Amino acid sequence: MSQPKKVVLAYSGGLDTSIILKWLQTEYDCEVVTFTADLGQGEELEPARKKAEMLGIKSENIFIDDLREEFVRDFVFPMFRANAVYEGLYLLGTSIARPLISKRLIEIAEQTGADAVAHGATGKGNDQVRFELSAYALNPEIKVIAPWREWDLSSRTKLLEFAEAHQIPIAKDKRGEAPFSVDANLLHTSSEGKVLENPADEAPDYVYQRTVHPEDAPNEPEFVEIRFEKGDAVAINGTDMSPAEILTKLNELGGKHGCGRLDLVEGRFVGMKSRGVYETPGGTLLLEAHRGIESITLDRGAAHLKDELMPKYAELIYNGFWFSPEREMLQALIDKSQEHVSGTVRLKLYKGLARTVARWSENSLYSEAHVTFEEDAGAYDQKDAAGFIKLNALRLRLLAARNRRNG
Amino acid sequence: MSQPKKVVLAYSGGLDTSIILKWLQTEYDCEVVTFTADLGQGEELEPARKKAEMLGIKSENIFIDDLREEFVRDFVFPMFRANAVYEGLYLLGTSIARPLISKRLIEIAEQTGADAVAHGATGKGNDQVRFELSAYALNPEIKVIAPWREWDLSSRTKLLEFAEAHQIPIAKDKRGEAPFSVDANLLHTSSEGKVLENPADEAPDYVYQRTVHPEDAPNEPEFVEIRFEKGDAVAINGTDMSPAEILTKLNELGGKHGCGRLDLVEGRFVGMKSRGVYETPGGTLLLEAHRGIESITLDRGAAHLKDELMPKYAELIYNGFWFSPEREMLQALIDKSQEHVSGTVRLKLYKGLARTVARWSENSLYSEAHVTFEEDAGAYDQKDAAGFIKLNALRLRLLAARNRRNG
Amino acid sequence: MSQPKKVVLAYSGGLDTSIILKWLQTEYDCEVVTFTADLGQGEELEPARKKAEMLGIKSENIFIDDLREEFVRDFVFPMFRANAVYEGLYLLGTSIARPLISKRLIEIAEQTGADAVAHGATGKGNDQVRFELSAYALNPEIKVIAPWREWDLSSRTKLLEFAEAHQIPIAKDKRGEAPFSVDANLLHTSSEGKVLENPADEAPDYVYQRTVHPEDAPNEPEFVEIRFEKGDAVAINGTDMSPAEILTKLNELGGKHGCGRLDLVEGRFVGMKSRGVYETPGGTLLLEAHRGIESITLDRGAAHLKDELMPKYAELIYNGFWFSPEREMLQALIDKSQEHVSGTVRLKLYKGLARTVARWSENSLYSEAHVTFEEDAGAYDQKDAAGFIKLNALRLRLLAARNRRNG
Amino acid sequence: MSQPKKVVLAYSGGLDTSIILKWLQTEYDCEVVTFTADLGQGEELEPARKKAEMLGIKSENIFIDDLREEFVRDFVFPMFRANAVYEGLYLLGTSIARPLISKRLIEIAEQTGADAVAHGATGKGNDQVRFELSAYALNPEIKVIAPWREWDLSSRTKLLEFAEAHQIPIAKDKRGEAPFSVDANLLHTSSEGKVLENPADEAPDYVYQRTVHPEDAPNEPEFVEIRFEKGDAVAINGTDMSPAEILTKLNELGGKHGCGRLDLVEGRFVGMKSRGVYETPGGTLLLEAHRGIESITLDRGAAHLKDELMPKYAELIYNGFWFSPEREMLQALIDKSQEHVSGTVRLKLYKGLARTVARWSENSLYSEAHVTFEEDAGAYDQKDAAGFIKLNALRLRLLAARNRRNG
Repeated sequence: MSQPKKVVLAYSGGLDTSIILKWLQTEYDCEVVTFTADLGQGEELEPARKKAEMLGIKSENIFIDDLREEFVRDFVFPMFRANAVYEGLYLLGTSIARPLISKRLIEIAEQTGADAVAHGATGKGNDQVRFELSAYALNPEIKVIAPWREWDLSSRTKLLEFAEAHQIPIAKDKRGEAPFSVDANLLHTSSEGKVLENPADEAPDYVYQRTVHPEDAPNEPEFVEIRFEKGDAVAINGTDMSPAEILTKLNELGGKHGCGRLDLVEGRFVGMKSRGVYETPGGTLLLEAHRGIESITLDRGAAHLKDELMPKYAELIYNGFWFSPEREMLQALIDKSQEHVSGTVRLKLYKGLARTVARWSENSLYSEAHVTFEEDAGAYDQKDAAGFIKLNALRLRLLAARNRRNG
Repeated sequence: MSQPKKVVLAYSGGLDTSIILKWLQTEYDCEVVTFTADLGQGEELEPARKKAEMLGIKSENIFIDDLREEFVRDFVFPMFRANAVYEGLYLLGTSIARPLISKRLIEIAEQTGADAVAHGATGKGNDQVRFELSAYALNPEIKVIAPWREWDLSSRTKLLEFAEAHQIPIAKDKRGEAPFSVDANLLHTSSEGKVLENPADEAPDYVYQRTVHPEDAPNEPEFVEIRFEKGDAVAINGTDMSPAEILTKLNELGGKHGCGRLDLVEGRFVGMKSRGVYETPGGTLLLEAHRGIESITLDRGAAHLKDELMPKYAELIYNGFWFSPEREMLQALIDKSQEHVSGTVRLKLYKGLARTVARWSENSLYSEAHVTFEEDAGAYDQKDAAGFIKLNALRLRLLAARNRRNG
Repeated sequence: MSQPKKVVLAYSGGLDTSIILKWLQTEYDCEVVTFTADLGQGEELEPARKKAEMLGIKSENIFIDDLREEFVRDFVFPMFRANAVYEGLYLLGTSIARPLISKRLIEIAEQTGADAVAHGATGKGNDQVRFELSAYALNPEIKVIAPWREWDLSSRTKLLEFAEAHQIPIAKDKRGEAPFSVDANLLHTSSEGKVLENPADEAPDYVYQRTVHPEDAPNEPEFVEIRFEKGDAVAINGTDMSPAEILTKLNELGGKHGCGRLDLVEGRFVGMKSRGVYETPGGTLLLEAHRGIESITLDRGAAHLKDELMPKYAELIYNGFWFSPEREMLQALIDKSQEHVSGTVRLKLYKGLARTVARWSENSLYSEAHVTFEEDAGAYDQKDAAGFIKLNALRLRLLAARNRRNG
Repeated sequence: MSQPKKVVLAYSGGLDTSIILKWLQTEYDCEVVTFTADLGQGEELEPARKKAEMLGIKSENIFIDDLREEFVRDFVFPMFRANAVYEGLYLLGTSIARPLISKRLIEIAEQTGADAVAHGATGKGNDQVRFELSAYALNPEIKVIAPWREWDLSSRTKLLEFAEAHQIPIAKDKRGEAPFSVDANLLHTSSEGKVLENPADEAPDYVYQRTVHPEDAPNEPEFVEIRFEKGDAVAINGTDMSPAEILTKLNELGGKHGCGRLDLVEGRFVGMKSRGVYETPGGTLLLEAHRGIESITLDRGAAHLKDELMPKYAELIYNGFWFSPEREMLQALIDKSQEHVSGTVRLKLYKGLARTVARWSENSLYSEAHVTFEEDAGAYDQKDAAGFIKLNALRLRLLAARNRRNG
């Protein structure tokens, strides 16, 4: 890689990315542009601006965006149309945020004439892959700088020394090491590392930050109604809301009732297994409700095809291939299926449980006339089942006859 | 179908199958053999013997088997190795019992020289398909009689008249219609029909029979440790047990804590949607724990392949194709994957939740040395990630360059 | 099914469908509308009009359509975008024509106020399924009449007696039985039955009707260039043509060189195996060329996803589910992939072989700079491969270490 | 990677691997063990021994093995059970040989106490990946040396200078550059690079080495009968043969008739597209015949499941994951399906075409009684089809009714 001249850094305003900022300036002697996004992680962004200014970034090089609506509308919702879960359980809260950050990094690079982007992900995780695959897919000529893979600041002590040597302010509580590492956005909070490194030890209570302990949740269940249109949630308890408002409200409800906790060992794309603790309160409700509304509005053939392709789709997102032709092809297939996925689902929330208890829709395919145990007035002729079974059985009978004959 | 001479009937001893028994005798003038199985449905079997005798069945034609161990060992456990769920949620409790019943029907037919089998499933459901596909796959020459598709006893009134006309005793509580229909075995209880027919109405509390209401479950969580060997549960809290004992114990634990309830609208193989309420307390714990032990002992490539094939495998079981070559091929694939799936999982049970909180194994693939945030002593070279990403990105970059060039 | 009042019959003008026409009039005493389509089967249609008139059909009830362009544009081409082959070999020439015929039957029924449609397919084959699933999917209330499943004209003799009794003219060569049964359209000719019923006997030469014997094909190869736009063929040897013109021209070329013969035993949807001899000269060239143009314009991820889904897609078409949500979902996925599949392929035709020998495109993803054995001027850094392999190997190494440790 | 002490080199005896041999000695100052395999590439092996001795390898460090039977029995045949083709066309001739070579490299390393293996594949291709993934999967601690990714001998001139400087004899015809690069074994010959680098140019005739030009093939067709047992070919024209003998004989037959040529652009695992010319004469006959015998002995459900999984299986082999759990799982599934795939297929070979014209088996599932156009004596009841279609249509009708209702 030739020397970068101007680099857009995904900048949180925290200690680590501040060190990266300074390292980029000193190591590459290049102009740095900072990009700080509000993805619903629950932190103020203005301090990031001040800190960037303090570290010598020109004000026209400081970009701060509220991406919450775009995040939910164009990334979270399309993914939930697929009922995507990775390895059976993980709702992909971190994975789905990375492509959006890369998309903005590349847009800002093109806007500011930068030839490189940089991120603060380590060389052991999936996030570096997600950031960089997205960046390359959007701009094949871009240079990518991943300081954690390059520098020799390999211990906490060295990092702090570097910070001090470059007058980067260190918050008191950052002197010691955090007992675990956290990533958060509007969809989830993930925690990993340190105290969580032994998967045989139960995660300590203080790891959870966004959901109450089920034991501490209200003793009365609460019901919530979510209305969908074409596969996306559009209203809660009768009130229309924007995508980010929907997810914010669902987070509040789910968090209050202790829903959406997950303690998982997962297989990383880079090859090792890792243990993560995830809290996805709103997403957990959304997934349950989406399955509920699909259960009455989606044809069986469509639903089963979606189910068969979901693991592949989830894997693509987990591995960082959001901006790949195969993810887009699967999205086209999934979106096609959602045209009539409209209606309302009622969930019961209680002590960590979120279960569908009722669902209705103008587009329902459920036919009481066909399924009833009562007289069905000719809707269904039970005798049809005889032929249906006989012909489904034919190949099995030919097989059995052959195997009996030949042993 | 030519006239059957001797027919083996799947006989519960209840009113409906007693009517069928008599109808077979009168309609076909054939000898009837009854087969009553203990699959853990929680009913005494000896009354079925008495009732069969009373209806004129010769004692050598009455077969009563305790199939619980075979059921769990050869059907439930192999299915759970696959983490099988139908349409994302249903644990297939009814589906998996049918092939075993058919297998015994065919065995008894061959033993007694019968040329036909009969069952009491209606013409609207999946069970007729499951019974009959299994029967034909095991004996391609067998005749199958499904009275519900043939007779004209199309209303409750007519059924009761037939019973009275043939001196079939009618229990008092059977005079009125049941408010819903129930199927039970060691894996689950399912309820459907009548009061459950409107999926927009919440299922009434009295439908649930095997699990306490989460609100009524203990206020303290309980922890349970399940040990697996080669993918199958073999011990609970340190005590080795047989397959049926394991499932019985897990049912007790899950039922006490309100775990494993499901209210679902599903797509039947015969084409319509139906709504069922399922209680699978032990199975729910087993699935969660099996995923937990796989998470540390199963390679990512193996796990993802299983995930991709699971929906197909579940669909085959749901549709009645247990005894099909494609199910057996998938089983060979799944079983191959389980060779090292051994170890222990600790679950936390609380108010309907059953969550993995810890897992350990001598076969663990989790490597703290590789994943640690600390110094890893050379286990992993972060610089490898650069090349990994570059080559994963190459095709995306070529694509992006092409698309930029050509618009 | 209640008594039909007016029925639209898929009418070829041949003896069999003329008998059906008369049988519908006599059996159901209903008004008959005839529909005769030109799908490129190579027969004159006007005789069908005369024959229908002679059998008493009112002229406003006689529909004759040239559907060749619609057939190729909306059915054949979309299917070829998927490289669809059934059971590895069959190009689905009969399967793909049925939904179009059903679509027109339903349209004509709605236009003429008919409440039923009828077809001449037997009860043993796939075509009845394809006709009827399509009809029901387009009009859930339509009645379908399949005379071959209903009537008692179960032998050739009875059919001829019926024809004579009803003054249906019988061509001399139809008195005896045909030595095999034929279906033809612009995509293929299929032959089956009678002399072909023993799959251990080679098909006699006279079965082939549309392609010369490879032994009789020209001794000189011929080259043909096919240009594609967005996955569809649009020009041959530099001349732009309509879809049906393209296929007609490819048939001429392929037929002349003996290309596209197939002798196959296949698994029918209704459960038995059957043996068919297919001639698909133009389609064989088209498939080869489409694969050729995809090979340079389609990304690997996209291509492999298509390959994995193709068997499912082909099965859906074979089984008659063209008008199903899952086929439409797959089509959306496939069509999404074809946006850049434009360019030209040169085929060499010789003695039954049709092979891609060259291909070029403005959208090519092939990069000589990357692949060259010569100096690549930095396009590709071979050292990247080391990290790529190390991380792809990581899980395999962890697995091997575990297995070595634990035996 | 720490300094290797003893390295096993995959040594062909040619100029390039001789240079590698010397480079390993000089660069790493380590002991070199050579391994030369006969995989049917058609070259004498003894010259490799002499050359190794001349380059200073101790005789106990020279390993020369005839692996032809193991290659066909344990690698080629299992792969052909799956009908594996990559990207629709490529028979994986190179891919399938690499894991066997790695297996022997690792065995020899363990036998000789070597801590490293080395190969002569470049950093641009798939073979490096296949060699190394296999090596790591079999010995997670092994060191792998890939000189082409490490050294600075980046041009032909530098290579020849190095050879001369180290007294490596250079055959006269190796002074100039070869016009393309070749790999060969008993399954295929592949050619790529140089004159083949422009996929818009037809491959020159002299590239083909193992098959006659179809134009030069005999003017008379030849028939060959291949007998299979459990999915593997065991006899040709009635003569039982070993696996390697079978493939050798089929190569002779196919080569004589010009069968098995392929000119392909494929997507490499490392990300770019490349163009290869493949000759797989025997494999082409074997694939066609295997499909033929499966067509009558394999149930439809089994066959379709295999078809759906084949692309994944082929991709795994292409990408180098032969020794991965997911390949082994798929193999278990495939092998399970082959239990009854026994019988004989007759192929017709003519001018490059190899087509099944007849097939028979004691295990045939083809039932003339069921499929006949004649009276079937009750084998099949056409009326069953009515119910079969009605229930397959039910969900489509419910869907159509919903969509009509709601627009």
